[in-house]
Amino acid sequence: MNWNGRPMTRRGLLGRLAALGGAGAAYHGLTTLGLLAIPPAHAGIPVRPADIGAGRSVVILGAGMAGLTAGLQLARAGFDVKIVEANGHIGGRSLTVRPGDSYAEVGREKMVCRFDDGLYLNAGPGRIPHHHTAVLEYCRTLGVAMEPYIFASRANLLQSDQALGGQPVQLRRIKHDLRGRLSEMLAKVPDPAALDASITAEDHAAFKGMLEQFGALNRQGDRLVYRSSSRAGYSVPPGAGRDPGTLYPDLELKTLLDSDFWRNGLFNDMTDYWQTSLMQPVGGMDMIVKGFLAAAIPGGRTVRDLVVTESPVREVVNTETGVVVVHAKGREQADYCISTMAPSVLARVKNNFRPAYADALTRIQDTPAFKLGWQATHRFWEENDQIYGGISWTDHPITQLWYPSDSYFSKTGVLTGAYNSGANAQLFGALSHPERVALALEGGEKLHPGFSNWVHRDRALSIAWHNMPHFPGGWQNNPPELDPQAYARLTVPEGNVMLAGDFLSYWWGWKEGAIRSADLAVQAIVDRVSQ
Amino acid sequence: MNWNGRPMTRRGLLGRLAALGGAGAAYHGLTTLGLLAIPPAHAGIPVRPADIGAGRSVVILGAGMAGLTAGLQLARAGFDVKIVEANGHIGGRSLTVRPGDSYAEVGREKMVCRFDDGLYLNAGPGRIPHHHTAVLEYCRTLGVAMEPYIFASRANLLQSDQALGGQPVQLRRIKHDLRGRLSEMLAKVPDPAALDASITAEDHAAFKGMLEQFGALNRQGDRLVYRSSSRAGYSVPPGAGRDPGTLYPDLELKTLLDSDFWRNGLFNDMTDYWQTSLMQPVGGMDMIVKGFLAAAIPGGRTVRDLVVTESPVREVVNTETGVVVVHAKGREQADYCISTMAPSVLARVKNNFRPAYADALTRIQDTPAFKLGWQATHRFWEENDQIYGGISWTDHPITQLWYPSDSYFSKTGVLTGAYNSGANAQLFGALSHPERVALALEGGEKLHPGFSNWVHRDRALSIAWHNMPHFPGGWQNNPPELDPQAYARLTVPEGNVMLAGDFLSYWWGWKEGAIRSADLAVQAIVDRVSQ
Repeated sequence: MNWNGRPMTRRGLLGRLAALGGAGAAYHGLTTLGLLAIPPAHAGIPVRPADIGAGRSVVILGAGMAGLTAGLQLARAGFDVKIVEANGHIGGRSLTVRPGDSYAEVGREKMVCRFDDGLYLNAGPGRIPHHHTAVLEYCRTLGVAMEPYIFASRANLLQSDQALGGQPVQLRRIKHDLRGRLSEMLAKVPDPAALDASITAEDHAAFKGMLEQFGALNRQGDRLVYRSSSRAGYSVPPGAGRDPGTLYPDLELKTLLDSDFWRNGLFNDMTDYWQTSLMQPVGGMDMIVKGFLAAAIPGGRTVRDLVVTESPVREVVNTETGVVVVHAKGREQADYCISTMAPSVLARVKNNFRPAYADALTRIQDTPAFKLGWQATHRFWEENDQIYGGISWTDHPITQLWYPSDSYFSKTGVLTGAYNSGANAQLFGALSHPERVALALEGGEKLHPGFSNWVHRDRALSIAWHNMPHFPGGWQNNPPELDPQAYARLTVPEGNVMLAGDFLSYWWGWKEGAIRSADLAVQAIVDRVSQ
Repeated sequence: MNWNGRPMTRRGLLGRLAALGGAGAAYHGLTTLGLLAIPPAHAGIPVRPADIGAGRSVVILGAGMAGLTAGLQLARAGFDVKIVEANGHIGGRSLTVRPGDSYAEVGREKMVCRFDDGLYLNAGPGRIPHHHTAVLEYCRTLGVAMEPYIFASRANLLQSDQALGGQPVQLRRIKHDLRGRLSEMLAKVPDPAALDASITAEDHAAFKGMLEQFGALNRQGDRLVYRSSSRAGYSVPPGAGRDPGTLYPDLELKTLLDSDFWRNGLFNDMTDYWQTSLMQPVGGMDMIVKGFLAAAIPGGRTVRDLVVTESPVREVVNTETGVVVVHAKGREQADYCISTMAPSVLARVKNNFRPAYADALTRIQDTPAFKLGWQATHRFWEENDQIYGGISWTDHPITQLWYPSDSYFSKTGVLTGAYNSGANAQLFGALSHPERVALALEGGEKLHPGFSNWVHRDRALSIAWHNMPHFPGGWQNNPPELDPQAYARLTVPEGNVMLAGDFLSYWWGWKEGAIRSADLAVQAIVDRVSQ
């Protein structure tokens, strides 16, 4: 709330904003100060004059979310567009694997999906946050149906070899015992006002009343104490008649501290993009890709008609009047190029970029990522564990076990039996598929003793994204903050080449970033041709 | 962990439990001590010898969840069963109102549903907790499909005339600012071990590390402080390129204390039965009723064939050999009677119960409950507010505003525009329907300015359960704890009459209690005929 180092009242600041930028800036100021309750949403697919691109051409490298977004917008604005995709599959990491589908990591045998009909694995991303308004607006407009994705059920499990003898424990128990213990400590503080300058001695009663609710504390005389709470759950659930159930015994703070749950899994559902509620496309993540491909563009065509597949890019050269792209199936001359390739991959393509730009490309780091999918013999997690969606967390290398948020009660289902990145993904990626299966079974057993009997090990699918052709990893980790200089350089077009992709956004690793970055790239081209 | 006042080790306790009750008790002990991670589930519809009831008859009063459960089980066990229902509608409070459906409160005009085709309002219960294993096992067995019900999205709103100038504010902001503030206070405590005996000075670093995660604190030198966090959200969301977004300014603890959010709405998603994940039957809550009615029983019949509707009970009399029930359509003589009527309603039926039992019936208190449903002109909560399911809370009498967890992106939808109990329900219940509509519009405006333009006020549905014929209220509030003596008395059969219903359980107000209480009543009858 400081402005040039001087404190400023809200009214003073708003006046200044209005003076600087008109009503729009004042609105922005209101929002910033939190006086408006709801952040603004993405306005949906931008509509531009249909002839603004007439006579101009753009070649787009990559038919993932960013490339398809840019292609759709540019074609609708009258540009001549071609999208060049290295792989046979359109959609990039939005890969949904269904029975009969296949793929192969570099130098490995083809992996064929042998699930029962109707089942699928989202081998890449699997969920969309409710506040990712760009991707949601596109889905709404393109008719892609959404359903809830459960990120965290309180019946999900935490397991660590370092805690509670290695036994899995329900998330509800760790969450609420910890909360209760902390709340009890605060209730013992003799003078809370000494720890928070905003409150006074008169607020002490309200403070204690709030803590009682915050931590599910019990009053014992004038003390507030934490004892087993129904929030933390029951070892024997209540029933009818004279059966009040039995609460879990409460865990001591020491036990909670000694566990490493608070380092992994326990607080993840508070991360902005994992906060309830999330969504998934009905029928698989690639339904979004299909929505884009079916979108109408001028000339009675669809976005699908713009895409050339199986054609890796070999050369990208800025010329005085445009850009030349050489790829496996031909040579394109265009006014502009939008590359959605991972920066590290683009850096290895023959080019005439200036050194600072070429160097910046190499400084965006790729993150290894691994997933494994199981078809289960039956939905044991629903029947035995009261788990209907969400994720269990373990310190075993599988890291995460995802349960389906749809098709409850059905005969079978697909579990994401491992999802990890970094060192654990490298570990899995270096193994053969049978070795991955064996390791993931071990992880499943940690969470669900008997797991090995309840999954079809001969139908497992594994994918190490850093081994996939033309993918250097699962995503690029936090480019804007890890190398701000390189990131800033890449936001500026290099001649007639501009970049798009989630890596060029503050939503790296998310479709939201891909779409918003494509919006920017398209706008930059539209601005140029409008001058 | 004390046993007769003496501390006992776990091993000692387990040995003692085993000595007292065999392996079952030892298992129970293991669970109680929290050494088993997952509480046991309901075993599903009990299977009994198909002829154990041969030649015996049972009359059941009420065709709600408890009555249908008891009828299904008894018929399958060979009993001659009749279910007598006072209303024309089968299913009790599991009332799903669809276009063309109608109902009427006592002394009022018929309310006709004028929603568009395909829409519905769950006028009674709307959700099922994931740990309500009895109702879920029945649904699984009876083929009733379930889908996620979102109880709390972090985009849901809190609104209070007492806080933040009456403006609605996103749940994420209040939750995480409060958490951060409390965490920051704890990080300032010089000697945490003095406030919690389980930890020592050596644990101080781990304690601080945990607080950093718990509250999203920032390190400033060796201090941990709370500043606006991405958990609490953005007034301007991050985007692509050079657009990092703007965090909401953090709220002071004083502001959070002065608001009454912590008294209402803020912590509800921690209550055991509202913890994520919850479910709803696909297509409406009465799909469960339909599942029960279609369930096969001997003789090529279904449960539907057992039910007589529109037949209020006038008399229930124990005889030396059984029971006589007189109702509007006839007179039943049976060996046993299970009454699922609300205790206060049964008390007013002519009977020959002993005084202590008759008195106990009158001591179970009914709770008024009110709901109002709107058809919206469009899904403004999705488009404007990023709300995909969940509930917003206000101190206006509507109390709650529910958003649909299904059919995202569709053209329209049904909002539960008021849901309350107690004094607010009495307030609404005393109003005419047009007055209710006007009051609920006012509440909607508090949460969503413009609300009145976005709902079809001529299609609203309202229901005050305490005004509905044969329903004394929405439920009976906490019978086991509010009057333990009366409750205990009612768990014992009165002659050949026994009770069932959610009021006779620790899950009062929930289907889970109705089903588990019916299980117990049926078992009591089976035990008697087996002697």
